[in-house]
Amino acid sequence: MKKRIALDMDEVIADINSKYLDIFEKELGKRPEKKEYWGKKLYKLHPEAMKFRQNLFEKGFFRDLPVIKGSQEGVKALMEHYEVFITTAASEFKNSLGDKHEWLQEHFPFIHWKNFVFCGDKSIIRADYMIDDHANNLESFQGKGLLFTASHNISENRFTRVNNWEEVVTFFEKEKTLV
Amino acid sequence: MKKRIALDMDEVIADINSKYLDIFEKELGKRPEKKEYWGKKLYKLHPEAMKFRQNLFEKGFFRDLPVIKGSQEGVKALMEHYEVFITTAASEFKNSLGDKHEWLQEHFPFIHWKNFVFCGDKSIIRADYMIDDHANNLESFQGKGLLFTASHNISENRFTRVNNWEEVVTFFEKEKTLV
Repeated sequence: MKKRIALDMDEVIADINSKYLDIFEKELGKRPEKKEYWGKKLYKLHPEAMKFRQNLFEKGFFRDLPVIKGSQEGVKALMEHYEVFITTAASEFKNSLGDKHEWLQEHFPFIHWKNFVFCGDKSIIRADYMIDDHANNLESFQGKGLLFTASHNISENRFTRVNNWEEVVTFFEKEKTLV
Repeated sequence: MKKRIALDMDEVIADINSKYLDIFEKELGKRPEKKEYWGKKLYKLHPEAMKFRQNLFEKGFFRDLPVIKGSQEGVKALMEHYEVFITTAASEFKNSLGDKHEWLQEHFPFIHWKNFVFCGDKSIIRADYMIDDHANNLESFQGKGLLFTASHNISENRFTRVNNWEEVVTFFEKEKTLV
């Protein structure tokens, strides 16, 4: 039986960061540069920024996110030797559910809907590996956790880090030979 | 730490059966009686019935289902000693996602959205107990599975059966004293 990978969406396959930057630019008149935000949570950049989080509740917010570079080819490569489930924190945002479903069917049509999981607390997930940008999701995971680099997690050092999709594929290529 | 229960929605807390019967009545001009359908899959009752399944894809189908008798009080009772997650097969039907989210917030507002899981293949779920009307979901589950009685599962005998919410609560009352 193939081993199973639980794969996060936001900041791992879906580029929500660039959408946040669009909102900052629209609301504050200036797009933050990478040197300003890298290593921080975007919401801490400006006293008003926490308000922008309201956008996440709106229909359509999650529908037009760009695809993270290399993720489509990367997932296809993983699927040759592993079973890939999309495990995304979505249940806080009712309107994100349909958006995320459509987004996945558009950009990752090769992943079956049976393997979509829209959840909240990811400690409910059973898998062999989890790829996620949030350390708290990996903390409660019983398999092997891989931390996908994002601005907010660069100081975290408890998990195996993958900086991009090339590193994800390389990790699993090596792992496969150990199985 | 509280033990965790993965709880199905359709035919366990949400009465989808009566909605199916409404559709049969509308499409065929006659509401099937319990003696006609009990022990069978409703779709096998009539050669045209498989077509009715298309209704599941429509927005609103899952929004107005009646609540299964005793389930609200039952879930509240379980939550005193267990952590309850809603684990529902929803990802086949994009439009069911928002409907199910709204339905849960209306009828089970005491369950946190962090504990909602909208998925497809439930073998991704990690919990101590699972309550479900589909034997195939219990087959792949690693904890203790409870089969909630529904018309389509009455011949199944591999799992502990619960016929109604009174029996669910009684089961967990006994279980709790063993912990």
